[in-house]
Amino acid sequence: MNIISLVVWTLEKNCFTVYTALIVCFVGFTIFHKNKLEAHYRSAEKKEKLARTAAVRKERDFRDDSDEDPELLVPAIPEDTPHIVYQPPRRTDDEVLRRSREYYELMAQRRTVRTFSAEPIPQDVLDNLIKTAGTSPSGAHTEPWTFVVVQDPKTKEAIRNIVEEEEELNYSKRMSRQWVTDLKPFSTKPVKPYLTDAPALVLVFRQAYSWRPDGKKRMHYYSEISTAIAAGFLLAAIQYSGLVALTSTPLNCNARLRALLSRPANERLELLLPVGRPHRDATVPDLGRKPLQEILLKI
Amino acid sequence: MNIISLVVWTLEKNCFTVYTALIVCFVGFTIFHKNKLEAHYRSAEKKEKLARTAAVRKERDFRDDSDEDPELLVPAIPEDTPHIVYQPPRRTDDEVLRRSREYYELMAQRRTVRTFSAEPIPQDVLDNLIKTAGTSPSGAHTEPWTFVVVQDPKTKEAIRNIVEEEEELNYSKRMSRQWVTDLKPFSTKPVKPYLTDAPALVLVFRQAYSWRPDGKKRMHYYSEISTAIAAGFLLAAIQYSGLVALTSTPLNCNARLRALLSRPANERLELLLPVGRPHRDATVPDLGRKPLQEILLKI
Repeated sequence: MNIISLVVWTLEKNCFTVYTALIVCFVGFTIFHKNKLEAHYRSAEKKEKLARTAAVRKERDFRDDSDEDPELLVPAIPEDTPHIVYQPPRRTDDEVLRRSREYYELMAQRRTVRTFSAEPIPQDVLDNLIKTAGTSPSGAHTEPWTFVVVQDPKTKEAIRNIVEEEEELNYSKRMSRQWVTDLKPFSTKPVKPYLTDAPALVLVFRQAYSWRPDGKKRMHYYSEISTAIAAGFLLAAIQYSGLVALTSTPLNCNARLRALLSRPANERLELLLPVGRPHRDATVPDLGRKPLQEILLKI
Repeated sequence: MNIISLVVWTLEKNCFTVYTALIVCFVGFTIFHKNKLEAHYRSAEKKEKLARTAAVRKERDFRDDSDEDPELLVPAIPEDTPHIVYQPPRRTDDEVLRRSREYYELMAQRRTVRTFSAEPIPQDVLDNLIKTAGTSPSGAHTEPWTFVVVQDPKTKEAIRNIVEEEEELNYSKRMSRQWVTDLKPFSTKPVKPYLTDAPALVLVFRQAYSWRPDGKKRMHYYSEISTAIAAGFLLAAIQYSGLVALTSTPLNCNARLRALLSRPANERLELLLPVGRPHRDATVPDLGRKPLQEILLKI
């Protein structure tokens, strides 16, 4: 019996009964599957949101939220910015060789230090360090960084409390056992006296975007890599000047430290660097670095 | 009329017709909603997969793929690594101030250059630059980087072909119109003569993980930020030595350049830096940098 003949047959038999049954059944089925259908639409929405905000990190930089109205397509920096001749002092091969060796020897002495002397750092020095970080290249010259330099003892104490609370949870619950094990040789622990001992804490915030004078959102292309390169310039400047630092990435502290320091929604904490002079009893693990042939491939 | 009395009433009227209609209706409804229900299950699965592989970038570093068998929980670096006294030369405040200023003044002269002189760079210089990059700090001292230095003209040509092909697609299809507009002041274009003109190309690869001598996978915690900081050290060394570079992030070139240079599956291209001396006619856009008070917050 095919469906059409069945329908004709049932219509002949009892029209009212069949249509009532159909309606009851349809309503019943819809109620029965309601949750799943709703979940479908909800999850599709969530999936899209998730894909928009996360997925391949690079992809995030592809699109901005602007409507791309051609009228609004003006570059963040004026398009007619003049180009000027760039002729830095020319150095001979011998000079370049000597300087590259000298710089390597200085940088090779750098170590991450976990115990600091309380001696304060002159404000002009801190200014020069941050100015040096600010010379770093960035995607489309967006300079997507904010450096918060904390010397106030009460604020350092508040930062220490937040980091220690989160670190306690990181070590006990959030990090893999292998990770905690891999950190053992460094004597890292959830208690962080250096956050109050070091004379200055530099908190490196990355700006994912900013606002242009015309009110349009300005995307910061490659803001992660740009901000980390700037942190490299900062660490190099600290070493060159004769100070030391601890390179730390406070896990899960972004929201609370951002709130504490009143940083806006477009900024995210990437690094926290205590800076100062090493404590007179400072020690470091006796580690080597990979030999050149392990990190360099010549073609 | 409530549902129960309706059902009783229809049963009295014509049992067979009603049940046939119910079955037809149920099957029909299921077929009608089949796609949505399937999509629901598919999307839930995809959502989970997406959340697992991407989502918060930091999360990726939380877990490794190891089974966390306590027997295998040995740190990548020996746990009993001795700690040694670290006493770098102590510099007075005046010295620190002088050096921080001197370093800032040198770094402030750095510019991204897009036209290079063909003069070769001595191999020892390139070695010193990469050795300096290798002094950079890294998560749990994993040193998650490989620097591929290309001087061979044929390989440079092959790299240029790949980058130009991908860039043509990036500019015409993959990048937002706003992004392409924001790049106009820099005179960037899909044609990249500097990839064959510069005497050396440094390709910075990040290792997401490596293999320990015991065959266990070694996770490279914070490999993105560590590799970018090392690139900062490298750019600083290039500037200090008296050379110039172009900081570029070749979009969508990872797979093809990785294949060309035979890099393993655990490595990902992060940056491509042509290095050399500027062409005698080199120009740069006449840009300023943000003033200190825009990038520094003192607390």
